[in-house]
Amino acid sequence: RAQELVRPLHEADQGALIEALPADVRARLIELLGDVFDFAALTEVDDSVREELLEELPTETVIEGVKDLESDDAVYILEDLDKEDQDEILEGLPATERIALQKSLDYPEDSAGRLMQTELVAVPPFWTAGQTLDHLHATEDLPDSFFEIFVVDPGHRLLGQIFLDKLVRSPRIARVDTLMNTERRRVHATDDQEQVARVFERYNLVSAPVVDEAERLVGVITIDDVVDVIQEEADEDVKALGGVSSEEELSDRVATIARSRFVWLFVNLITAFIASAVLGLFEGQLQKMVALAVLAPIVASQGGNAATQTMTVAVRALAVRELGAGNALRVTLRESFVGLINGIGFGLLTGLVASIWFHDWNIGLVICIAMLVNLVAGALGGILIPLTLEKFGADPAVSSGVFVTTVTDVVGFFAFLGIATLWFGLS
Amino acid sequence: RAQELVRPLHEADQGALIEALPADVRARLIELLGDVFDFAALTEVDDSVREELLEELPTETVIEGVKDLESDDAVYILEDLDKEDQDEILEGLPATERIALQKSLDYPEDSAGRLMQTELVAVPPFWTAGQTLDHLHATEDLPDSFFEIFVVDPGHRLLGQIFLDKLVRSPRIARVDTLMNTERRRVHATDDQEQVARVFERYNLVSAPVVDEAERLVGVITIDDVVDVIQEEADEDVKALGGVSSEEELSDRVATIARSRFVWLFVNLITAFIASAVLGLFEGQLQKMVALAVLAPIVASQGGNAATQTMTVAVRALAVRELGAGNALRVTLRESFVGLINGIGFGLLTGLVASIWFHDWNIGLVICIAMLVNLVAGALGGILIPLTLEKFGADPAVSSGVFVTTVTDVVGFFAFLGIATLWFGLS
Ligand SMILES: [Mg+2]
Ligand SMILES: [Mg+2]
Ligand SMILES: [Mg+2]
Ligand SMILES: [Mg+2]
Ligand SMILES: [Mg+2]
Ligand SMILES: [Mg+2]
Ligand SMILES: [Mg+2]
Ligand SMILES: [Mg+2]
Ligand SMILES: [Mg+2]
Ligand SMILES: [Mg+2]
Ligand SMILES: [Mg+2]
Ligand SMILES: [Mg+2]
Ligand SMILES: [Mg+2]
Repeated sequence: RAQELVRPLHEADQGALIEALPADVRARLIELLGDVFDFAALTEVDDSVREELLEELPTETVIEGVKDLESDDAVYILEDLDKEDQDEILEGLPATERIALQKSLDYPEDSAGRLMQTELVAVPPFWTAGQTLDHLHATEDLPDSFFEIFVVDPGHRLLGQIFLDKLVRSPRIARVDTLMNTERRRVHATDDQEQVARVFERYNLVSAPVVDEAERLVGVITIDDVVDVIQEEADEDVKALGGVSSEEELSDRVATIARSRFVWLFVNLITAFIASAVLGLFEGQLQKMVALAVLAPIVASQGGNAATQTMTVAVRALAVRELGAGNALRVTLRESFVGLINGIGFGLLTGLVASIWFHDWNIGLVICIAMLVNLVAGALGGILIPLTLEKFGADPAVSSGVFVTTVTDVVGFFAFLGIATLWFGLS
Repeated sequence: RAQELVRPLHEADQGALIEALPADVRARLIELLGDVFDFAALTEVDDSVREELLEELPTETVIEGVKDLESDDAVYILEDLDKEDQDEILEGLPATERIALQKSLDYPEDSAGRLMQTELVAVPPFWTAGQTLDHLHATEDLPDSFFEIFVVDPGHRLLGQIFLDKLVRSPRIARVDTLMNTERRRVHATDDQEQVARVFERYNLVSAPVVDEAERLVGVITIDDVVDVIQEEADEDVKALGGVSSEEELSDRVATIARSRFVWLFVNLITAFIASAVLGLFEGQLQKMVALAVLAPIVASQGGNAATQTMTVAVRALAVRELGAGNALRVTLRESFVGLINGIGFGLLTGLVASIWFHDWNIGLVICIAMLVNLVAGALGGILIPLTLEKFGADPAVSSGVFVTTVTDVVGFFAFLGIATLWFGLS
């Protein structure tokens, strides 16, 4: 019954179905479905759901399910398990599969070696197009789907690549080494997946060969898995900029989420106290002129928002490698100019409104200058902080925000209250 | 000379080269390169660079360049031109190409019809695999690259699809309608590109047929162009959350950027004044107890950050369609709990520090309660505001931020100063 309903579903839909079920019936359904459940569906669910499931399912079921997968999907499922559980499952697999998976798992996390599948078609350079096509026709044990075949030398070093559409359109008697493309991008097994994604994006690839240190062909990465990387990296950056851990998922529990968010908020609380300490320095002045206490947050907030704009552009441009040593100076200058222009604009605007509100053009003048100073400071902070973090190997998406708003809060309060102290002789 | 250097470059590298040059020599280089310049490179440069170039280049050069492109790249280049320039170029093209491009351009902006290429291979259902392969072998005028062939009826309605790897592995005498896959996802020409990207991501597609209202096959979308859409949409969301226009590009001029950022900052200024007005209501209290003026920004800032966390998760989950009617209630409840837990934690922490700072446990108590209230309000605002905006068809990424921080500023100031007024009897 359940089997009949689930059988026609795509693995992605099976994954969505599993995820939509209450946690305690997921494992039972998978056992019930037996063969009908495609373990590839587990690559489509949240990490936390997958981990729970793999805990609950009997090892034999997992081994049977993993057996049917292409190596990249198997690695995706295995890589987050403890060493112990991993070994238990690997031992249950046929030797060839086990060795292939182990090789992938030996590459670092988030590397091309983890992302690749080891199933591929490679032929020697002296074969003809006709011979190759006949081979494809006659061989049972080929990858589930492939778009290109690779040409390798006796040492399995990658010589070139031919797309299937080229192959079927070539004269049957042509040797593959006369047909192959030798220019195509290859990736190294130890390359980071972000790097891999950028190569795919830039050169519009559909698949790419993966080679080891000796330029030997060890696997192939296909675009569908790179799309997941692109999504994952975009996701990470959006979350990091919003002060959320990249690991947080919609299926997480309240306690997990509260704990992970606490950390970031704690850092923010410290910076908020630093900003308040600046206000505290001017306690006497605030008491004498309460208008200053009312207006100070406007200076800080406007600077914070302008700085966030600059920072967002900088972080994004760094992530997609549009910003680098070549144009850092130009972009910094440009952002400073933008800060100056908007600083003048908003300085005048805020000054005008403040003058009217408090019937005192002096206070308008003071807030006008403070606003200008803070918007320029915000622009500089917004660009220089991400650039510096990137330079020192920190992820600018994660930590730029705190530093940037600390700069604009502190500079905003200090400029406004400092100038006011001098102008009104408040000290 | 220049030709020899540029000829071996991939179109993406040609694009990067053009972009790196000063604006005034770009057009001259392209003219100099003649045939060697691949107009597909123009799909890889910033919009503003492309628009400037197309203005400067003589129409004949553009016509010659566009002639060599696949239809999707041609559409990408033409779609942003004025109607007039577009028509001028279209008129210079051969009739078949012109008609194909015009058809794509008639579909709405950001639709599947704009994204598809019209070059594809379609065969009738009664052909055999062998006949199809022979056809591919003998025909000159095929797409530059393709991964699948389509099966259509005499009315050009899509019946199914066969991947090339399946085709070459099938018995030559098998009819294609016995080999074809009829289950594969198709997209409609009027579907939005975001919708298309989600189908590709979910079902791990490499290409997908595009059909019109009558289910007639009109084109094919390939993953490399969908990857650009995914990047573009992620980019839009990152920028929107940071208060930057989605149109802003690194190559824009200072004036353009200052103007587009001004708008968002202006909206922020209004909300900052609203928050200040709340402070203004309590002017008397602030004067009597200046500690309140020093501490109030902490309550607002902590609430704003907690709300931003919730909002980021909500906006991202809405964008990737993980959040919907089915789980909105559960996520709202969860966020409220997270707000409550962190509200208690940070309330106690802030209360303790404030008590020590101002040697008064009363002020600690007041800020503790205000913090709790504001973090719960922030959690509710952070989730309900994006959900409401989405419901009313507004893009939650663009406008959630202003509303959310307005809520936490106003609630933060009001709660803190209101409770202080009552507790200390300050009114
Ligand atoms: Mg698979
Ligand atoms: Mg993983
Ligand atoms: Mg990474
Ligand atoms: Mg691309
Ligand atoms: Mg795969
Ligand atoms: Mg996958
Ligand atoms: Mg990253
Ligand atoms: Mg466009
Ligand atoms: Mg859109
Ligand atoms: Mg996918
Ligand atoms: Mg294309
Ligand atoms: Mg393209
Ligand atoms: Mg969007």
